[in-house]
Formats: sequence, structure tokens, C-alpha cells
Amino acid sequence: MTAPGVGSVLIVGSGLIGASIGLALRARGVSVWLEDTDPESVRVAVERGAGRPGPPQDDPDLVIVSVPPVMTAQVVIESLRRYLNATVSDVASTKTRLQREVESMAPDFGRFVPGHPLAGREVSGPAAARADLFADRVWALTPSADTDPQRTAQVAGLIESLGAVVVTTTPEEHDRAVALTSHTPQVVSSLVAAGLDSLGTAEVRLSGQGLRDMTRLAASDPDLWTEILTSNAEPVSAAIDGLIERLAVVRDGLRGERGGPLAVRAALSAGVHGVAKVPGKHGTEPVPYAVVPVVIEDRPGELGRLFASAARTGVNLEDVRIDHAQGRPTGLVELEVRPSSAVLLAEGLREDGFEVRD
Amino acid sequence: MTAPGVGSVLIVGSGLIGASIGLALRARGVSVWLEDTDPESVRVAVERGAGRPGPPQDDPDLVIVSVPPVMTAQVVIESLRRYLNATVSDVASTKTRLQREVESMAPDFGRFVPGHPLAGREVSGPAAARADLFADRVWALTPSADTDPQRTAQVAGLIESLGAVVVTTTPEEHDRAVALTSHTPQVVSSLVAAGLDSLGTAEVRLSGQGLRDMTRLAASDPDLWTEILTSNAEPVSAAIDGLIERLAVVRDGLRGERGGPLAVRAALSAGVHGVAKVPGKHGTEPVPYAVVPVVIEDRPGELGRLFASAARTGVNLEDVRIDHAQGRPTGLVELEVRPSSAVLLAEGLREDGFEVRD
Repeated sequence: MTAPGVGSVLIVGSGLIGASIGLALRARGVSVWLEDTDPESVRVAVERGAGRPGPPQDDPDLVIVSVPPVMTAQVVIESLRRYLNATVSDVASTKTRLQREVESMAPDFGRFVPGHPLAGREVSGPAAARADLFADRVWALTPSADTDPQRTAQVAGLIESLGAVVVTTTPEEHDRAVALTSHTPQVVSSLVAAGLDSLGTAEVRLSGQGLRDMTRLAASDPDLWTEILTSNAEPVSAAIDGLIERLAVVRDGLRGERGGPLAVRAALSAGVHGVAKVPGKHGTEPVPYAVVPVVIEDRPGELGRLFASAARTGVNLEDVRIDHAQGRPTGLVELEVRPSSAVLLAEGLREDGFEVRD
Repeated sequence: MTAPGVGSVLIVGSGLIGASIGLALRARGVSVWLEDTDPESVRVAVERGAGRPGPPQDDPDLVIVSVPPVMTAQVVIESLRRYLNATVSDVASTKTRLQREVESMAPDFGRFVPGHPLAGREVSGPAAARADLFADRVWALTPSADTDPQRTAQVAGLIESLGAVVVTTTPEEHDRAVALTSHTPQVVSSLVAAGLDSLGTAEVRLSGQGLRDMTRLAASDPDLWTEILTSNAEPVSAAIDGLIERLAVVRDGLRGERGGPLAVRAALSAGVHGVAKVPGKHGTEPVPYAVVPVVIEDRPGELGRLFASAARTGVNLEDVRIDHAQGRPTGLVELEVRPSSAVLLAEGLREDGFEVRD
């Protein structure tokens, strides 16, 4: 089965995501029309080269709805009614509720191929749009049993042509997954950070890199996240419930109740098992890399000197972590490499005068 | 008040921490004796140059107890009885329970200066000892109201001479702090990771750098952490209780109960406030750095070329984060620099052909 091509696309909602899709499609020769309730937004997107102001003269092959989550269902339903042959897709970050609403209201919902690109920026609006926003990013598609498979293939082909990686799943599994991988971690990071509020300045210093990692997400915009969390309220509250249950087991174990210390140990072991599932680099199966730890002075050029030295060994650095020591201008840099390359890298760095820990 | 000097130290327990203290003290000309219930451990530590086999002929000025947490109280009490003029310190990672036990059993507990160096390695035993293990690391001292202030100053002076940063607080505040900054984050990381176990391989890919940061700690040793958590059971279970309460507020808010979405938003805002307290680099007040995002290809030498280019600009890199794109061999490197240096760095990198995002 060959998926039908897409020659013309109408993008409804020309903010960051909509305008970025427009730029990416234009770069691939697709005809793009842009609409938005805010004419200024269309003007900026058109000026950036993301397409022409809509509506198109002829019906488009595909309509992509990229309006705020709360508006998505309504605009998808309108688009299905307005263009009777077009495929309609969207970019909302949660799917179940949306699809239920569309399927109960739209006459011909088999033409709706729901999508969710996992891409974004810290800034919003069409001025921040980028043609490469979706390159190498996962773009989920969540067709239901009634979605026309040819239209799903059509949208998947288009998305892949933008450089994105298509992951196809059900709306329910999608929402449960993002609740566990994104929405609940966001809540937990905020609440762990909030718990620090009762500590004095001296006491907060009794912490390490772990706390920094755990609380990084907590700096995100509360308004945006309140909207995201409420749009996925059911799976997130279920995931939080599961977390509360597991926390209560550990708490009770520490108090000598239920399984006692054995229950604590079992909970930590389940974590070791779970973390092995977290995607490593490039979304491949997690690979255990070897760590080469190097102590460096904190002065201009020192990191550059380190990486130039590493480059001379020809070893590919898979990852880099910098663990800043407290109170003094030095740091520990952990270079992650394939285990077979660790000795070569360590020797090369030592030859260049770096202190490599064993 | 000048603190009395320390000419001779007996270290009881010659594992990683004890032997590292020995190496550091020997490098500064202090006479060191080593004891351990395991003669092999003493032999290795002595061979590494961490000191001589104990006991010393004359009473030592200072005894440092660095045995496993469950043994610490008993060995501290014995040491106070055995050397009637010596100062006694320890390295256990939780303090309240220990100090209560010592104060109820030892005749002269004013000579006990409790300590906790926040340093360690992934490996244990005297063979892994390092003279610089404590350089730039926080070393907490938790004297009680009855601790002799001159002896606290004596221990603080010695610790600072090893390059560590002394933070003085009460045992209760110390334990509450590490419960919030270290022990509870460890539990949460494990439990978030454990929650992923129900997801399929495709669904786990619907995640980003945030999940990786949040679950990094979950890979730690369950046995070690069960011992640490149980030694601080009361403050950790109280911190978990607090977290459960805040999670329940968010869960209920998502279900439209209690404060509804407003309660969700308030919880996230408290997180923004809390994260501002997390120590930045070098334990100083957090500094907002500017981020310069660079897209790089994944091939040997590419990171090296990037950092060499950055070095040529003379700009000091404050931090580096690598956000690996999924499915494709490219990555986004975020270079953190002082805001005043961001433009200079970005221009220099672009001149060398790097793609710097605005």
C-alpha cells in the first residue's frame, strides 16, 4: 500500500509549532496556507516564509490543527466538516479526551489522524519558529481502530520527510506514557524543590549533583504546566496515585511497619530495574557506557583543552557530565565512552597532563 | 580563641573514607595510626601510605571513627573511654540518633565532635582511597550544646587544611536537610523509575532529557541505600509524608477536588520558588547563566572541535549539558556562560562553522 502524497497543507494556528511545520514543509516544496484567529500571528509566520495566508482556493490534502489544547477538538471537528476529502491531523500533547470528543461529534472521523510532536522551545510564537524543530524528535501518532490506515500512512510519510521519528501507539497508551515519562516527573520535581523551602542557606548546601538533576524541571512555567496536566488529568492522577502508594510503602518500611527495611530495599531494586528502560542516547536501547572521570581547574579554556585532548585520541564521547565541587574552583568532568575505548581515552588525557581518576 | 593543633591522629576503620583521611593527613605531615577489625584492610591502607598500624604508643590528639554507620556509636564511646584527653570525631552520614546514643552512654561526651564529609566514590575499600577525596567537598560538623567549642574549632581547622568546606549545623537540622536534599530525592528517583516498568518499549520513547535527569539516581546500590535510609528513618519518613501530602493536593486538584487547577498551579509555583534555593556551581548563590545552544553531529572529535572553538573565544564555560536527540546521530549541546559573554561565544562558534540556535 503506497500512501497518497501531500501537495497542499492548511495549517490552522500559526504559533511556534504551526509556523515551524510550515517552514519545514515549504523547505520540501509543499504548498502551505496559514490561518490563525490572530491576524498578526499569520502576518509574522508568512513573513518568516512559513506559507501563504489562508484559506486555500482548492481543498487542501491535509489540515494540521496546531491551536492551543483546549481549542483543538473544536477546530478538528470544524476542519473535517469544512474539507470533506482532506486528512486532518493535530499536535496536542494529550490524545484520549480529544479523540473521544472528535469521534462523538464529527461525521467522518476516520479521516482524523491524531499526532503529537515531542518538540518545543523555551520561547513561543511564530517569530521563534524553526524549520528544523522536529529533526530527530519523536512525533507520536495515535490512530484509533476507526482511523483510515492509508491516511495514517500518509501523515507518517510526511512527518518522516521532516526528519522526525514516528512512534505509533494508541491514544490511551500515549497518555499513560507521557503521564509516567513527562507529566508526573514534572510534578515530582516541583514538589521536591518546594520541600527545600523550609531549609536554611547553610543546610541547603548539604546537597550534591543529584538534587540539581532532580529539581531542574521545577523551574518550568506553572501556567503552561497547569494546562498540560489538566488536559491529561486522569492518567496523571492515576500515576500520582501509584507513586503515593509506593512512597507510603517506603515510609512505612522506614517506620518498621509492613515489610520494614526489606520493603525499602525491594522498592529501590524496582527502581534499578525501571531505570534500565529509560532510553539512552539516540533513542536506542540503553547502553552501559564506561565513565572516565577527569579533575579540571575552573578557568577559561580548560574544558576546551580537555575536549581537544579527547579529540586527539579519536575516541567518540557518548556523553559528558560536569559535577561541580562546592566552594572551590574545580570540577569533576565525567566523560562517557564505549567500554572498549576507556583505557585509550584515559591514557591520552594523562599524556596531555590531565588528572584522570581511576 | 586559637584552636589546639593536631599532631597525631588515630583512624578507626580503614576503608575508603578512613584511608583517604589518612592519605590526606599524611600529605600534611600529621602522624597517623590505622586500626580496623579486618587486618587486611589495615595492611592495604598502610601500603597505600595512609599511616602506620595502630594503636599509637602515646595517646593521639584526635580519634576519627570511620566504621560502618551501625557500629559508629559503640566505637565512639569506646574511643572516649580509651583516650581520656583525645578529641573524638566520626564520619557517619546521619547524626541525631548517634549523638543521642553517645551522650547517654559516654562519660565525657563534650570531647565528641560529630562530622559528616559529603564525599564518596562508586567503589569502596582502602585500595580506592584518595588524598584529594575531600577537596572542595562540604564536610558538616554537628556539635551539640555540650560539645567543647575549642575541640569543634580544632576539628574544623584540621578539615579545612584538607581542602574541605566546613558547614556547621545542629544534628537535627543536618538530618532533616539530608533527608530533603539527598535521601528523599533518592527514593523518589527510584520510584519514578519503577513506575516505567509497565510501559512498552515504544511508549518509553515518548520521553526526553527530563526523565533521564529524574531517574539517574535510581541506578544506585539498593543495599547501601537501604542502610542509609534506615539510619535516618524518622526525618526521611517525615519528608516522604510531606511529599505525599503535596502529591495528594495535586492529584485532587487534577480531579477537580479541593483547589482544582488553582491548587495545581500553586504547587508548581512553590517548586519554582524552591528550586531557586538549590546551590549552583561551587556552592555559591545560584547564578542565572545564559544558555548558548549548539547543534552538533555525533562523530568522533565533534565535541572536541566545539570546545576548542569555545576556548578560542576566551569565554569561561560555566556548565555544559548534552541533550541527545532520539533516533538520529545529532545532539544539542547547551553551553552555559555568564550572560555578558553569550554573544561573544555564539559569534565565535558561528565563525568556526557551528550551528548556534538563537
